[in-house]
Amino acid sequence: MDPYMIHTNGDGNLSPVLDVHVNINGKSSGLGKMKGRKARWSVKPSDMSDKTFNPIRAIVDSMKVKPNPNKAMISLSIGDPTVFGNLPTDSEVTQAMKDALDSGKYNGYAPSIGYLSSREEVASYFHCPEAPLEAKDVILTSGCSQAIELCLAVLANPGQNILIPRPGFSLYKTLAESMGIEVKLYNLLPEKSWEIDLKQLESLIDEKTACVIVNNPSNPCGSVFSKSHLQKILAVAARQCVPILADEIYGDMVFSDCKYEPLATLSTNVPILSCGGLAKRWLVPGWRLGWILIHDRRDIFGNEIRDGLVKLSQRILGPCTIVQGALKSILRRTPQEFYHNTLSFLKSNADLCYGALAAIPGLQPVRPSGAMYLMVGIEMEHFPEFENDVEFTERLVAEQSVHCLPATCFEYPNFFRVVITVPEVMMLEACSRIQEFCEQHYHCTEGSQEECDK
Amino acid sequence: MDPYMIHTNGDGNLSPVLDVHVNINGKSSGLGKMKGRKARWSVKPSDMSDKTFNPIRAIVDSMKVKPNPNKAMISLSIGDPTVFGNLPTDSEVTQAMKDALDSGKYNGYAPSIGYLSSREEVASYFHCPEAPLEAKDVILTSGCSQAIELCLAVLANPGQNILIPRPGFSLYKTLAESMGIEVKLYNLLPEKSWEIDLKQLESLIDEKTACVIVNNPSNPCGSVFSKSHLQKILAVAARQCVPILADEIYGDMVFSDCKYEPLATLSTNVPILSCGGLAKRWLVPGWRLGWILIHDRRDIFGNEIRDGLVKLSQRILGPCTIVQGALKSILRRTPQEFYHNTLSFLKSNADLCYGALAAIPGLQPVRPSGAMYLMVGIEMEHFPEFENDVEFTERLVAEQSVHCLPATCFEYPNFFRVVITVPEVMMLEACSRIQEFCEQHYHCTEGSQEECDK
Repeated sequence: MDPYMIHTNGDGNLSPVLDVHVNINGKSSGLGKMKGRKARWSVKPSDMSDKTFNPIRAIVDSMKVKPNPNKAMISLSIGDPTVFGNLPTDSEVTQAMKDALDSGKYNGYAPSIGYLSSREEVASYFHCPEAPLEAKDVILTSGCSQAIELCLAVLANPGQNILIPRPGFSLYKTLAESMGIEVKLYNLLPEKSWEIDLKQLESLIDEKTACVIVNNPSNPCGSVFSKSHLQKILAVAARQCVPILADEIYGDMVFSDCKYEPLATLSTNVPILSCGGLAKRWLVPGWRLGWILIHDRRDIFGNEIRDGLVKLSQRILGPCTIVQGALKSILRRTPQEFYHNTLSFLKSNADLCYGALAAIPGLQPVRPSGAMYLMVGIEMEHFPEFENDVEFTERLVAEQSVHCLPATCFEYPNFFRVVITVPEVMMLEACSRIQEFCEQHYHCTEGSQEECDK
Repeated sequence: MDPYMIHTNGDGNLSPVLDVHVNINGKSSGLGKMKGRKARWSVKPSDMSDKTFNPIRAIVDSMKVKPNPNKAMISLSIGDPTVFGNLPTDSEVTQAMKDALDSGKYNGYAPSIGYLSSREEVASYFHCPEAPLEAKDVILTSGCSQAIELCLAVLANPGQNILIPRPGFSLYKTLAESMGIEVKLYNLLPEKSWEIDLKQLESLIDEKTACVIVNNPSNPCGSVFSKSHLQKILAVAARQCVPILADEIYGDMVFSDCKYEPLATLSTNVPILSCGGLAKRWLVPGWRLGWILIHDRRDIFGNEIRDGLVKLSQRILGPCTIVQGALKSILRRTPQEFYHNTLSFLKSNADLCYGALAAIPGLQPVRPSGAMYLMVGIEMEHFPEFENDVEFTERLVAEQSVHCLPATCFEYPNFFRVVITVPEVMMLEACSRIQEFCEQHYHCTEGSQEECDK
């Protein structure tokens, strides 16, 4: 009897591994347990990581174009208001952080949903009679991204679906699909200032619909829904008994001729998880301080969803405690002037950009009312050299060194998104280069000679 | 023909909902799609949130005991070195944060895996010839918890298993089970200073084993593995072709008579993801700055696992950018004296506590070599009044106002964990109260009269 049968399973690249089978007196020994082990190294990434797909990264990385070396690059692609240095946060915000550091009180672990005192501050900041909030209705998160992640994770199981806007922020789909949640796209209508196609929205809802994501003000559209439109959205949710995840990270960032209505203030029955954070309004997206506001006046979420959110928050704990400690002062002391100045600047840039692009044959910008973006339709029939928005924006970089995101990133081909946080002079220069680019590539289509003669 | 058949599905508590069926000319119209919708509100938390279970919370919350009103509470239960105020972080660490704030350079989004410059600093801090590191091998995370979460999420699919230590930090199980990953517990041996039962460890590995978690220095044991023991662990992993997730958050936190060996420095072939962060050594657990160090000199993880980690990091982005911006100075400028003072204090407290508890009949403390904990065995046969460690620690709170975590929280009944970061005078007082408690409840067992007479 051979007590050991030794097989060598190595190949040229891997170190050989001995697979030992032991057979003593015809009976398999205790080592038989080891038969199931791996014969060689094979470490594969999980399905979840395979399913985690960031379309912006995929599209932008595959573009691989070089800017025109004779023109300085102007990037209008990143939704980060801090990159140009023209929009610093307020000094009160920075001071609040230093005070939190000096106090020495905010170095330890906070509860996973955030300090009670910090949650009280957020609750009182957003509290209003129509949508009351207490500390128990607030969960602090590591940025608005984690807020959205927790909401999806608590509301939806794999195999369920969520409804998300098209065009819309790509993270919704990235998160949902990584969790095995199906996404269904409802349409925003550019001709109606990006209002939702409510009929189509409602037609998508089925028994497996876990929630509808409503993003207002909108990235990438810069649109702001009217009170009456929000009421109609709520009516759909109420009729269909579907909760709403309101991505309100751009809340209050609306231009002076427009009013922002927090969704929850317009509803008494639809349960709403509103996600927000310091990122945009306070101009500190890197600080990763987000929140979930739980609006559930009919007790439809009940304790189960609340407890679920708390439990999920314990997986990685919440945001940096220094920022939590600074929240009170940030929310109370940031002067109104700061918010006002940011919005005046954005409005002025939006007007400049809209005006300049609206005058360019072949482009159809949609005037924004808030947030930091503007969407521009490309009349592709007038640009036959380009297959689509990706190629259009690719060539815009190559020839004019102006980088805008093709709206294919937002599931909306033949548009591109312009970020309007750049300094005015760059905004103007970018528009003028876009104009030059369009003039060089514009072709009249048959039967539209009249238009071209204009 | 009735064009509309309206059913009211309301009940007393919920607003009535109209369920509209449309039938025109015998054909179901487009609105027929709406048949699948929910007839009433029913929002349930996901399976994932149901499966997210924090045993410490569950056990501690269910204890619900009141401390003795005549004795001030001494909590030795929370693994947070900052709670007593006796272990502040170094002033260089705080100054680094203020400098990062003042620079204004760290308010925007960082790459989801962290700034390149910050990753370079971490790589160079942990680089050594036996385990070289570059920026590409470092991923910054929102605390060590997210580091562990990302590692598990990239390595394991639902239905696979991971091996975790018993006793061990409860987060491993919480995270794994929330993701549908099975946990198998391998034993640490108190009589061998909590070394791993390697034979039992190896017997647990099967084809579905995605990784082994090795926590060194250990929470809750305070143990530190020797070089030769670590080599034996690596030999098991190499033989079984199973990667290691090394939780090294207490790395370098070992007492002067002992040496800490980063696991990766001892292996050339086993792929290792080492998780760490600022939390413990720099005494700022609330700041949520963690990291993953990828050690893969045989290219077994390859680009696939690296890319998977990057993709998963894009779900919620990384840690607070101010802390990232401060990392360079924190790692370079924190004086050696700071680390030394922390460890001297912990060693002194460990000796005090071990000495005091070792002298108490019925208790069997295990001497720690690092981290911030000490595990104490309870000879339950001598405390017949108490069912188990949970009841023992519960009564210790009720009578002596001393709170220790029952080691049932760490899957290890009949032990309790002592946190040794409290000020010396509290440490002594706590030990003296534990002594009083044990003396009051100690009973001789039959046949051990001799022992009791001592």
